[in-house]
Amino acid sequence: MALTTRLTRALGIAYPIISAPMAFAAGGRLAAAVSGAGALGLIGGGYGDKDWLEAEFRNAGNAAVGCGFITWSLKKQPQLLDAALAHKPRAIFLSFGDPETFARQVKDSGARLICQVQTRRDAERAIGCGADIVVAQGSEAGGHGEIRATMTLVPEVADLIAAKSPETLLCAAGGIADGRGLAAALMLGADGVLVGSRLWASHEANVSPRMHDAALAATGDDTVRSQVMDLARKLDWPHRYTARVLRNAFIERWHGREAELVAVADEEAAKYRQAWAEGDPEGSNTFIGEAAGLIHGIEPASVIIDRMVREAADRITGGARELVS
Amino acid sequence: MALTTRLTRALGIAYPIISAPMAFAAGGRLAAAVSGAGALGLIGGGYGDKDWLEAEFRNAGNAAVGCGFITWSLKKQPQLLDAALAHKPRAIFLSFGDPETFARQVKDSGARLICQVQTRRDAERAIGCGADIVVAQGSEAGGHGEIRATMTLVPEVADLIAAKSPETLLCAAGGIADGRGLAAALMLGADGVLVGSRLWASHEANVSPRMHDAALAATGDDTVRSQVMDLARKLDWPHRYTARVLRNAFIERWHGREAELVAVADEEAAKYRQAWAEGDPEGSNTFIGEAAGLIHGIEPASVIIDRMVREAADRITGGARELVS
Repeated sequence: MALTTRLTRALGIAYPIISAPMAFAAGGRLAAAVSGAGALGLIGGGYGDKDWLEAEFRNAGNAAVGCGFITWSLKKQPQLLDAALAHKPRAIFLSFGDPETFARQVKDSGARLICQVQTRRDAERAIGCGADIVVAQGSEAGGHGEIRATMTLVPEVADLIAAKSPETLLCAAGGIADGRGLAAALMLGADGVLVGSRLWASHEANVSPRMHDAALAATGDDTVRSQVMDLARKLDWPHRYTARVLRNAFIERWHGREAELVAVADEEAAKYRQAWAEGDPEGSNTFIGEAAGLIHGIEPASVIIDRMVREAADRITGGARELVS
Repeated sequence: MALTTRLTRALGIAYPIISAPMAFAAGGRLAAAVSGAGALGLIGGGYGDKDWLEAEFRNAGNAAVGCGFITWSLKKQPQLLDAALAHKPRAIFLSFGDPETFARQVKDSGARLICQVQTRRDAERAIGCGADIVVAQGSEAGGHGEIRATMTLVPEVADLIAAKSPETLLCAAGGIADGRGLAAALMLGADGVLVGSRLWASHEANVSPRMHDAALAATGDDTVRSQVMDLARKLDWPHRYTARVLRNAFIERWHGREAELVAVADEEAAKYRQAWAEGDPEGSNTFIGEAAGLIHGIEPASVIIDRMVREAADRITGGARELVS
């Protein structure tokens, strides 16, 4: 069963799905598995480590993948974009900062420019910068994001695109973990979806088994947006962004006590990084979205993607047959 | 064009839409217009004023409407439920508190019991209390609510219902203001939707024209969840609930300064209530959700509902025809 949209036609892929370039979790193996399954896989360039990036492009082999960056962080090491572009990626994905600095270079390289936005205002900016694909990310997403919800942000950005730049493509991100979410996103006016949490919970993701277990035990009620993980890691995230993680001992201890955490950040940073290196889901954080309540197993990326597409197609055709008369 | 679901069959209505029982805004005139348009209209019982409630049931005339209550507030004046049931409402809608206190009385009366929930945990409780319809409300909704998003809460509650109580019906609430949102909600597994903001922006709603104007000028980026309006009104809302409103002078002044507001609440309460009575969108609050960015006119409820259903049916049949092969 096929699901064909403007996105699949533009990218020459089978399914209207892009994997989120999740820092740490989305290496070359996951990106290649996603592209191999008929979607578009993205390596998560994260906070910028050139050796890691080169290794992950090698891990992706000859698969047609793209690469994502945290925009404000990339501005500190703009040479990482050169390094990524040297691999002829299918797309460069920028999120969390003004994309203008890098937009021209990406587009001149022949890679597609994907800009993830969290507000209508930022979507306007991304269109102005020539984004080929705008990803409208709702707050239900795991990891970093903001406060708008997928359900309203996607149709609002769809209207903006229709009025200002009809050729720009739109993907929905945040809370989309099965065929129901994919079908819903298409109904909202998206040309495809960005999938994070559900592919984080895959065999190919670089995730600690203990964190996978913690996520499987959670419901969607068990996540929270916070800044304490960034304060503890001493990362300079702009204040408007928070990260969605599972509630745990670390969150119980520090969420709401940010000033105290900053005061002891040197000591806490070492402890946090040690816990993270050990894959400890209580001493560091499990980065996953509200979709945790929709994820019940760790599976190969191809199985996840196949099922998502089949379910979405079934929902849409079933809806047309059974609901409308 | 018809859109038929388990909800329309169970309630004997044409369209799978219920209007939110918005305090103050949803009087008998709106409820009757919604029911007259083929959906189910609900009067908003709000904080409990028996004279107002009786007047609004009179304003609804002979229309088959229901009535909603704020559960924690109804517990202070349980006789209001008797008053509502005396009008033989089609349904009683309970939100924001444990429904158990009133569940038996509602069900024995023959009215449908609709329980709105904001978390998976509360959905489990509502099912346990015998809810005929569970409304899963996401944070993007206007007015009071919590932090889960519609996009994940709806399918998660759908799975819970399928496992625990398959005959229970499910509606999605939060961010649904047009046919795209209705179609998306049906894809997510809902049997219908609850519509607040979009019907708040109708001719029949009891809303100040100045607040309507403020909402039309806003985008979805311009709302915020806060507790300051409840502190200023000296309402005893349980701490877990906040209200989504437009950002305005009042929010700029007090949001984040809650302790200071409490200290001067007597004085501020009088000013707030005066501003509210004058329909002042800066001195009090415009209660609307993120869907503000999808609303571009104040229209009759019947026009809104007709278009929503037609658009949703078009989206679903168009999707089946154009996307799936």
